[in-house]
Amino acid sequence: MSTTPTAGRPRDPEVDRRIAHAALDLFADTGWAGFAMETVARRAGVGKASLYLRWSGKEALLTDAVTLRLARVADVDTGTLHGDLVELAAQMLDIYAGDTGRAALRLSLEAASIPGVAEHYEDMRRSQTAAARAIVRRGVARGELGRDVSVTLLLDTLIGGAMMHALTTPPERRGELARDTAGHARRLVDFLLGAVATPVIR
Amino acid sequence: MSTTPTAGRPRDPEVDRRIAHAALDLFADTGWAGFAMETVARRAGVGKASLYLRWSGKEALLTDAVTLRLARVADVDTGTLHGDLVELAAQMLDIYAGDTGRAALRLSLEAASIPGVAEHYEDMRRSQTAAARAIVRRGVARGELGRDVSVTLLLDTLIGGAMMHALTTPPERRGELARDTAGHARRLVDFLLGAVATPVIR
Repeated sequence: MSTTPTAGRPRDPEVDRRIAHAALDLFADTGWAGFAMETVARRAGVGKASLYLRWSGKEALLTDAVTLRLARVADVDTGTLHGDLVELAAQMLDIYAGDTGRAALRLSLEAASIPGVAEHYEDMRRSQTAAARAIVRRGVARGELGRDVSVTLLLDTLIGGAMMHALTTPPERRGELARDTAGHARRLVDFLLGAVATPVIR
Repeated sequence: MSTTPTAGRPRDPEVDRRIAHAALDLFADTGWAGFAMETVARRAGVGKASLYLRWSGKEALLTDAVTLRLARVADVDTGTLHGDLVELAAQMLDIYAGDTGRAALRLSLEAASIPGVAEHYEDMRRSQTAAARAIVRRGVARGELGRDVSVTLLLDTLIGGAMMHALTTPPERRGELARDTAGHARRLVDFLLGAVATPVIR
């Protein structure tokens, strides 16, 4: 084992990040069936003791890796509906066009049957849904969106449209998309707001 | 083994269907790692010999099960853009709200690394994309859609929106959705065509 930090030494955030990276990549490749502390340690280039110093077990490790690399939607509040929706769509494109896409898909398949991760994943999904709905509600309150607009349809088509675009972009063009997720996010939001936005005097 | 058909006996389509059902369900549960002829036979309530009489191996069996239970998009041509898009969205909802949803998700994750299935899955995806694009092209030709509409954005939001709706509907309400996929498909298409359709004199 190459590194064996003593209990008193402060944790190195760079090592934490490297471990989270290795953990999510391993989960993407093998799913829960192949997820083991030892394999994560080897992929991250750290000792197994290093992992057990930080996490009590693989459920806690995967939960932290998911939190660190996948969940950000709750923070979105740019001040305009258009800005918020572009940010939301860009985050989905970042997840699904980037190297976290397969891990996110696997989670939606397997999370429910992984003890500890199931509850965390449900909480994350619920808070993301709440954040997305708050974006639309603020848009209605600011008069950017009519009161009769279906929040469900708007968010299904926005989030699903971003995800579908990332998943159906051929591998050889995915890098190009990953470098300009904001550009595609804007085109997607302009397309959808054409259907439902209230004309606003600017 | 309960049934061991002799080589000359005609195949029973009901047995084929039952086997395809069991095969896709097993794949949904365990992925390729747990996919075995013996387990499919047990789940379908037929003998292993029965399976080998029909399929040379598990790649061929999974390929047939996928074809039988998942792929229908190519057939859509109702005569109107609205009708075609509703049919397309309803098929996506049928797949993802029904018991084939997890198998379809797993395929998008694992198909590329399963020999034999990879090529078939790519062909299927390509022909579905071509069929969806043909729907939009016919709509433009009939004057139901402007020539400047982004086919990509329309199909991403339609197909992604249907998939996202099915996946985020809570399990306890998924049965309700599965019984009225056509109703939700109509609402989704009406929402999207509000953004892009050319007003047509009816």
